Amino acid sequence: MHTDGIEVTTGPLGQGISNAVGLALAERHLAAQFNREGFPVVNNTTYCIAGDGCLQEGVASEACSLAGHLELGNLVVLYDSNGIQIDGSTKLGFTEDVLERYRAYGWHTLSVEDGDDDLAGLERAIAEAKAVTDRPSIIKVTTTIGFGAAKAGTASVHGAPLGEEDVAAVKAKFGFNPEEKFVVPAEVAELYRKRAAEGARRQEEWDALVERYKAAHPDLYAEFKRRCLEGVLPDDWASALPTFTPEDKPVATRKLSEIVLTALAEKIPEIMSGSADLTGSNLTRWKGAVDFQAPSSGLGDYTGRYLRFGAREHGMAAIANGIACYGGIVPLVSTFLNFISYAAGATRLTALSELRVIYIMTHDSIGLGEDGPTHQPIETLAMLRATPNYLVFRPADGNETAGAYYAALRQTRRPAVLSLTRQNIPHLAGSSIEAVLKGGYILQDSKAPTGKPDLILIGTGSETSICVDTAKHLSEKYNLHARVVSMPCTNLFDEQTVEYRREVLPDGVPVISVEALSTFGWHKYAHHPIGINTFGASGPYSKLYEKFGLTPEAISKKAVAIAEHYKTTPVPSLHHEF
Amino acid sequence: MHTDGIEVTTGPLGQGISNAVGLALAERHLAAQFNREGFPVVNNTTYCIAGDGCLQEGVASEACSLAGHLELGNLVVLYDSNGIQIDGSTKLGFTEDVLERYRAYGWHTLSVEDGDDDLAGLERAIAEAKAVTDRPSIIKVTTTIGFGAAKAGTASVHGAPLGEEDVAAVKAKFGFNPEEKFVVPAEVAELYRKRAAEGARRQEEWDALVERYKAAHPDLYAEFKRRCLEGVLPDDWASALPTFTPEDKPVATRKLSEIVLTALAEKIPEIMSGSADLTGSNLTRWKGAVDFQAPSSGLGDYTGRYLRFGAREHGMAAIANGIACYGGIVPLVSTFLNFISYAAGATRLTALSELRVIYIMTHDSIGLGEDGPTHQPIETLAMLRATPNYLVFRPADGNETAGAYYAALRQTRRPAVLSLTRQNIPHLAGSSIEAVLKGGYILQDSKAPTGKPDLILIGTGSETSICVDTAKHLSEKYNLHARVVSMPCTNLFDEQTVEYRREVLPDGVPVISVEALSTFGWHKYAHHPIGINTFGASGPYSKLYEKFGLTPEAISKKAVAIAEHYKTTPVPSLHHEF
Repeated sequence: MHTDGIEVTTGPLGQGISNAVGLALAERHLAAQFNREGFPVVNNTTYCIAGDGCLQEGVASEACSLAGHLELGNLVVLYDSNGIQIDGSTKLGFTEDVLERYRAYGWHTLSVEDGDDDLAGLERAIAEAKAVTDRPSIIKVTTTIGFGAAKAGTASVHGAPLGEEDVAAVKAKFGFNPEEKFVVPAEVAELYRKRAAEGARRQEEWDALVERYKAAHPDLYAEFKRRCLEGVLPDDWASALPTFTPEDKPVATRKLSEIVLTALAEKIPEIMSGSADLTGSNLTRWKGAVDFQAPSSGLGDYTGRYLRFGAREHGMAAIANGIACYGGIVPLVSTFLNFISYAAGATRLTALSELRVIYIMTHDSIGLGEDGPTHQPIETLAMLRATPNYLVFRPADGNETAGAYYAALRQTRRPAVLSLTRQNIPHLAGSSIEAVLKGGYILQDSKAPTGKPDLILIGTGSETSICVDTAKHLSEKYNLHARVVSMPCTNLFDEQTVEYRREVLPDGVPVISVEALSTFGWHKYAHHPIGINTFGASGPYSKLYEKFGLTPEAISKKAVAIAEHYKTTPVPSLHHEF
Repeated sequence: MHTDGIEVTTGPLGQGISNAVGLALAERHLAAQFNREGFPVVNNTTYCIAGDGCLQEGVASEACSLAGHLELGNLVVLYDSNGIQIDGSTKLGFTEDVLERYRAYGWHTLSVEDGDDDLAGLERAIAEAKAVTDRPSIIKVTTTIGFGAAKAGTASVHGAPLGEEDVAAVKAKFGFNPEEKFVVPAEVAELYRKRAAEGARRQEEWDALVERYKAAHPDLYAEFKRRCLEGVLPDDWASALPTFTPEDKPVATRKLSEIVLTALAEKIPEIMSGSADLTGSNLTRWKGAVDFQAPSSGLGDYTGRYLRFGAREHGMAAIANGIACYGGIVPLVSTFLNFISYAAGATRLTALSELRVIYIMTHDSIGLGEDGPTHQPIETLAMLRATPNYLVFRPADGNETAGAYYAALRQTRRPAVLSLTRQNIPHLAGSSIEAVLKGGYILQDSKAPTGKPDLILIGTGSETSICVDTAKHLSEKYNLHARVVSMPCTNLFDEQTVEYRREVLPDGVPVISVEALSTFGWHKYAHHPIGINTFGASGPYSKLYEKFGLTPEAISKKAVAIAEHYKTTPVPSLHHEF
């Protein structure tokens, strides 16, 4: 949180109303979890003021369609319909019937014709909206932008100051002295004083309610205090993390994620997870999970911790931001890694607003196989790693998957992305939960008689085991000593001391990185990054790995050439930042 | 185009229907441009088959709202409503009234209740849809997924093969011999033969029509042939590109883009441009441009070449993809650079489908000032540069802006992004249109008595002139000789010969890059990348440049330390790819 009282930044259009859906959803969930007869400790209405631009954005459409489905009757949207957007009249491009659309979503719709003057009408409409509790409400408030100014009703009021003359005219029109600046009239100050007193009174009422709740429901209260008031995880949550050995059978990291999530979901009741219509692929629904649904649907209820977002990735991320900033819930949301690009408008705001949302992104490379290049991410990890405040994990096996959850959940002000495979991969000797916290570490080492490795192979995710096989191949066939570095999180590796980084990637040893996505960004860590700088292809994944040169044999060939080259040429240092 | 007959890949949900809006829009435009009384040379209906998932996506909502506004009566969507999506029943998350929503958008809506069997009803509905020409039509066709199979009506039909037994049962049910595989019944073959003959007949009719058109309207025909049949730009289009000198007054590259676009729009009639409700900021509407609008709106007509997308970035990009693949039009579309993240789902498909869409992205750094971090891109260029097949230009002045247009328009199968400033920047000695084609080049040089520069400063966009000032400062204050390399397009620089790249960035000279965005990716070109690896801030842009250390003084301090360091340490080579 950058500023007290402001939980999310809603600058980009469409985000605020979608966050509001998340806030309302979180309220319904926590109310269902914690309220008891006579103890409505979670009980608020979420209000949102939105404009024409907000309602044009697809993210808002997605979130509001879902809000209607979920019957979020605790949400009231005030739609400031002033007929103006930045280009000019909304007649230029926004002539749909907005309220009819919201009715189609299942919302309760109302109108206030004269939003400039009819404050009583506005108050009535809000009361009416609040009275309808089985559907979200939208009130279309027809207003004049820049009401009272000479430029009223034009787009230029939006982006440019009125100018001194017009400001003076507006002040005069509304009974202010045009000469005075920064004036708070006594009656306004009085009104605010009264509101503050009323607020303090309500706070006292609520505090007293919570005290009685504590007496009546001590266990529930303790949980409420931990989750909602203090925002800390249960003490021993990490003890639930499973560990794995190289003897365990190969398995996809998306499946490992399901195993870890299943263990954690029991231990951490504030975990809610969900998917944008890929539940069976993302494996984000633990056994026995209940869907978060309107009770009337017969498909779940508001205590449910599993979210069915439908094919609405951008809405999902923006709603998750709202849920995370409400507090008391840790949202994990999911789709294929490639389709985080649909949600990128909201995922960057997760980071900017410092929210703990965990993105479970599966099918994270050409390893997804037959779905082909439309579904195979290439540039996606570059985007995420370059976004400030993110932790992007690409775990190599079971221990690293558990470690990624561990590292992500320890954060309170950083989001994380878990990039997970569709295909099975082996568990590796040398991996551990704790090692993930370093971001990159020596997984397996091999030293030449000089005391140093001949070269270093860095792998991430599914390519780490390929690096292990490559090292073996290099040793057996070429008598080359290769160190394998596993790099599940470049962001965390960057945050280690330079001494540690030099220990992992010492000067004088050539480094090759292997990741089945764009090599963009890898020159920071490797002399020769191996990856895919074209779009992918459709086929069985093992064929694709061959096609793109990501096999121990193909990598070994390059490694041999590189080692040969550096016999006669000094190895450039990679640690040249000041 | 990867495969004949397939212009765009619509794998990701919601893209196909949005592309269809672009195809229909392009048809209306070219029909208005080229058709004459008795000569409907451009005259087709665009059909689209969409499913439940497609219609949940925000991109589809955006595109369809606009299609209704634009009254695209040549568009017919068949909505395959089978009540099933990947997670199971649509009741889990998609219970809105879709047809009511489309009526709210201004569409003509129809239903076919029994889409499994009622082919006559389907045919009638399509005829009815085509008869309504002042609105797009959507036909809700209620169907059973996997109709006829044992698993009919379930989600598992979507992702998994039926299995031998069920396939045999389906064949038997529909009167096929379950033993036979890959059979084309004679009556089906005959039907297709007839359709092919009918198609050939229609092609002949159309060819004859075009021949008569050629005789009646020779000039129009010549233009039609060039634009729509051959897809080549006018011979001398590049002669319209303006050039600039250092004596011209400083100006924002977004404004320079407007100057270039204005010149080109006259010369290249196939240019259509548009903005997602930021016309006055993106400066994409040349003087005298006519809006593309439904004639009934009174705000323009279908000959208009300027598109008012509203606040619909994702829809804009997907529509542009449709326009580009229709042919005969070069679409240029725009928003703030940061908000290309809203459109990333579609912009990656521009590249995958090899379409010439030019993205005019303004306000490209903290240089936009007061709008603050929600509007200031950081990771955005990393994402775009890492996307295969893109050309990402960040021009440093007027000549480079003209050069970026030149390089982008010469392409036929690659999209481009132009990253442009809000703030004024000077024209630089040494820049040229042609130099941009190399991606990076020596803008200004300075050699030490050794014959080499002491260090190299790489700049892009607005930071190039800061590098020029830094070089001057280094020379005057520290007697250091700095070469300034301008790098308007890293993608094109990567495609130059290694000899050329070594000439620009010779071994033995330390390199500093300066770009007011994430340094992610810059380690490929520089020993010390200077940039912004946090989110931005709100304030006047010159204050922000100070705050983030992007001034000649601050950069010089680092440069001096780096030059000092490398007096005693070998400079690592940056040319270490094999």
